[in-house]
Amino acid sequence: MALTKPCPHCGQPVVHYRNPVPTVDALIHIPGRGVVFVKRLNEPFGWALPGGFVDYGEPAEKAAIREAKEETGLTVELTGLLGVYSDPARDPRQHTMSVVYIAQALDPDELAAGDDAKEVDVFPIGQWPSPLCFDHERIVNDYAMLIGKYKI
Amino acid sequence: MALTKPCPHCGQPVVHYRNPVPTVDALIHIPGRGVVFVKRLNEPFGWALPGGFVDYGEPAEKAAIREAKEETGLTVELTGLLGVYSDPARDPRQHTMSVVYIAQALDPDELAAGDDAKEVDVFPIGQWPSPLCFDHERIVNDYAMLIGKYKI
Repeated sequence: MALTKPCPHCGQPVVHYRNPVPTVDALIHIPGRGVVFVKRLNEPFGWALPGGFVDYGEPAEKAAIREAKEETGLTVELTGLLGVYSDPARDPRQHTMSVVYIAQALDPDELAAGDDAKEVDVFPIGQWPSPLCFDHERIVNDYAMLIGKYKI
Repeated sequence: MALTKPCPHCGQPVVHYRNPVPTVDALIHIPGRGVVFVKRLNEPFGWALPGGFVDYGEPAEKAAIREAKEETGLTVELTGLLGVYSDPARDPRQHTMSVVYIAQALDPDELAAGDDAKEVDVFPIGQWPSPLCFDHERIVNDYAMLIGKYKI
């Protein structure tokens, strides 16, 4: 999809090709305690899984590990791929497509709020914080279902 | 990552934010026969799974179904997510990040080469066509491993 934006210098139209923006999220499961969420410093406000944009030249897995570290202080290892979430309405700002990895922390005591995070905490499976931003409620419920901890 | 390109009208630098470009591929498994590959009309030449770019505003699953139809003539239903392949070197032209879905065809007799495809054919699991473009050999070997048809 091509999008035309004015040149900031001369005002003439410049074509930018447009695709969904790839992002990653890390679902960090601390054994016996639950899932790590960050309280966002910026809009949309609320709780979310740690995550962010994939840089050009960066593999998605590396982006997930980097974002987990930046936002939660945790050094993580990925253990699985939960899914790819690409509903055009999932982020009110623009169309993003998130690859969600399951991860474990090497040392849970390193947990500390970092970039873009006001607060960081661990919540038991199914006892999610509120409100959850984006489509993260769907994501974490998919995870609870996958690991057999979903009550209907 | 920000990339600066000259405005085609005044030549002044215009910033474009840059992320990997999201793509999809469909691994269509025809029962008793194997996996559908297309022979590419454009560079890089060789065989590949049907796939292409995700449009802005389009969910990834819908893009995979659309590309399968355009390139193979097949109407497909997705049955699973094989993986996300985002090695920056996977495509020699630019950094793409592909979401690979497993799919089944409603009517295998509809198979016919379409857009961007010179030829389309079905190959038994493990007896892949050659050469395979991009990282598609890795992708189809991951699939063979997943379904228990990989011989070491």
